[in-house]
Amino acid sequence: MENFQYEVESWLDIPPDSGFSMYHFPYGICAREGGLPIACSAIGPFVIDLVRLYDEGFLDGTSVRRETLTGRYLNPLIASGKRVTNGLRARLQRLLSVSTGQEAREKLRNALVPATEVQMLLPVDIRDYTDFYSSREHATNVGTMFRDPDNALLPNWLHLPVGYHGRASSIVVSGTPVKRPHGQMIAQGAEAPHFGPSRLLDFELEMGFVIGKSSELGKPIPIEEAEDYIFGLALFNDWSARDIQKWEYVPLGPFLGKNFASTMAPWIVPLEALDPFRVEGPEQEPEVLPYLKSPGKKNYDIHLEVGIRPEGGEETTVCRSNFKYMYWSMAQQLAHHTVNGCNVNVGDLYASGTISGPTPDSYGSMLELSWRGTKPVQMADGTNRKFILDGDTVTLRGYAQSGHIRVGFGEAAGKILPAE
Amino acid sequence: MENFQYEVESWLDIPPDSGFSMYHFPYGICAREGGLPIACSAIGPFVIDLVRLYDEGFLDGTSVRRETLTGRYLNPLIASGKRVTNGLRARLQRLLSVSTGQEAREKLRNALVPATEVQMLLPVDIRDYTDFYSSREHATNVGTMFRDPDNALLPNWLHLPVGYHGRASSIVVSGTPVKRPHGQMIAQGAEAPHFGPSRLLDFELEMGFVIGKSSELGKPIPIEEAEDYIFGLALFNDWSARDIQKWEYVPLGPFLGKNFASTMAPWIVPLEALDPFRVEGPEQEPEVLPYLKSPGKKNYDIHLEVGIRPEGGEETTVCRSNFKYMYWSMAQQLAHHTVNGCNVNVGDLYASGTISGPTPDSYGSMLELSWRGTKPVQMADGTNRKFILDGDTVTLRGYAQSGHIRVGFGEAAGKILPAE
Repeated sequence: MENFQYEVESWLDIPPDSGFSMYHFPYGICAREGGLPIACSAIGPFVIDLVRLYDEGFLDGTSVRRETLTGRYLNPLIASGKRVTNGLRARLQRLLSVSTGQEAREKLRNALVPATEVQMLLPVDIRDYTDFYSSREHATNVGTMFRDPDNALLPNWLHLPVGYHGRASSIVVSGTPVKRPHGQMIAQGAEAPHFGPSRLLDFELEMGFVIGKSSELGKPIPIEEAEDYIFGLALFNDWSARDIQKWEYVPLGPFLGKNFASTMAPWIVPLEALDPFRVEGPEQEPEVLPYLKSPGKKNYDIHLEVGIRPEGGEETTVCRSNFKYMYWSMAQQLAHHTVNGCNVNVGDLYASGTISGPTPDSYGSMLELSWRGTKPVQMADGTNRKFILDGDTVTLRGYAQSGHIRVGFGEAAGKILPAE
Repeated sequence: MENFQYEVESWLDIPPDSGFSMYHFPYGICAREGGLPIACSAIGPFVIDLVRLYDEGFLDGTSVRRETLTGRYLNPLIASGKRVTNGLRARLQRLLSVSTGQEAREKLRNALVPATEVQMLLPVDIRDYTDFYSSREHATNVGTMFRDPDNALLPNWLHLPVGYHGRASSIVVSGTPVKRPHGQMIAQGAEAPHFGPSRLLDFELEMGFVIGKSSELGKPIPIEEAEDYIFGLALFNDWSARDIQKWEYVPLGPFLGKNFASTMAPWIVPLEALDPFRVEGPEQEPEVLPYLKSPGKKNYDIHLEVGIRPEGGEETTVCRSNFKYMYWSMAQQLAHHTVNGCNVNVGDLYASGTISGPTPDSYGSMLELSWRGTKPVQMADGTNRKFILDGDTVTLRGYAQSGHIRVGFGEAAGKILPAE
């Protein structure tokens, strides 16, 4: 089996700012017009047709089975295990490196499809979906706005990664338009709620991770093993209707304010592609309980941005944040989620919660950026935004960079359509 | 296509108190020892092997496809639609009626397997699972205990069916033992939480319904059509660890206090089997918003019971309740769940929330029965219970009866194993 290299040149001309570099090789599902879905990876401006590579014999010896490449979802490939999926990534890197001969290069070119010629599909058949609330800055901002600035964090927040179950059926792939939801909400001072389109529609900048290995009911995943269960990461926009959410969420949590849609990037970034970007997380004080102790570099330095583009207009970047700010790591989230014996399945999705940083321009939602509507966000076209308007396209982007090593997350974009 | 009859005699000897009567025909998945899973129904003490019936030609003309009977789950059969599944029930009724000739009866006997000779399996591949909180008595009891007796219901409760997303992966079929979960909890007056086995383990008497028809993202299900999407009902025990739940649930709702396990009955009772038991629900005051208005008989008169059997001991019935007490009907729950465009899929499960009645012996959880541990429940063996002990088997049972028409729900049973 090949090993992944960190000094390697390609025979392809890959722009240096491409997130789909020789040090990456994400996984996705795409389809040519009228074609069947296939598993793919990406390099520079191309998607890599993995079925074609398989059929040409380029994957011989990687233990990849063809039937794991031809389904609607990546789940069977993911379930093959990290040895297989990372072995395949190392093979892709070698095939695209200058060590590959001229004849093979010609054949390989046939498996490279301009990304503009395919449609990217939702990559995973998502089973259970959980959303955490793991950014201290976000929880503090929300607590300050809605409760008490002096006691912004609730008593449990520093002791456990607060999370709740979300809706899997309404998770859509980047590019899918999202209809402004109707719902119940209550006007300030009103005695009874009214029904109508949400007026406080928001995004939430999040990162999701996809489970790569199932666990057994009744068997917690020890924190030291948690990363073995994480296949990879994807950008995630947890659209939120703040007015619906506010009225409904006591005492059992967010429901219709969230489950009308969430937008996921089409590319899953394998956890191992992020090894060069590991960093330590924030210090945790008070000390966490033993089952949550996880010393070392369990956070990841990933630049994140959110842009809003009005209908027919120019995009404004409204947020620049970083995944490294998370107070609770993915390993801690997974260890906590399963400590009571809850089982996980390949294809489960676990999202971080809004990723806000320490500065006002790093807040990961309009609620925080506009501070509940009191500080409208200036847009490049001269308008401003308290929340998201009809026709706005919200796009999440992300990349990690360390020296010449760059790993991109693609984007998670969605345009808001008016309520019907 | 046959029609279902309400005056019909069987050539089989069916005990009059059997819930699996000639007016029922539920659906399940079973397996003989070492055998493959098959779709089945039930009559008296027998399960009906539907594959065998199909292969003998008894289902000719019903539009049932064989491949919908041979999978691990009922989803494909359910997705065939109510016309097919109710047509099949009418056929089963006719086959087992005295109008069937002697020769056919002999052949039919080969498809009747004593229920004791098969294992019942989880019947549905559950996609999204939502738990509601729709019993006014339950919400009032909880609000009285934990908040304010004079304002027990939160302001939203009478305006919408409060609900939250739950965990599908840990739903198990009746008979599966449940391990007492570990988790974080905080002692009265303590500054920091501790970790250990839950000491306040509880059941919740609930009814779940299974979706039979998928809807499209962005398209609400109007309340008049909601029942078309409900395939059938099953008993459901939403096990709850009250100490874990209490510490974790603010502000995003119950999580690890619930998702260690839920127990579902193996039999799905088709909605149409419950037609004779339709009743009007409680009056709704204040008036609900138009999208929740649903006049007529949308509740169901179904007797429910909960028994606790200590290890090696005698069972005590600790609760007698009724599904008719629900303040919010299933139609209202589904209309509300989708009014923001959230889509549903075949195999989704929607549970009622704890079904408590007006009298103290009808409360559907130990939390209420023992009034937070202040009124221990007397057991037949002389012990008492505040919550559930290791070795206890909790069994939910249910049936509906109108004259000679009886429809049983089987049982949802689970034994608590000690924490490891």
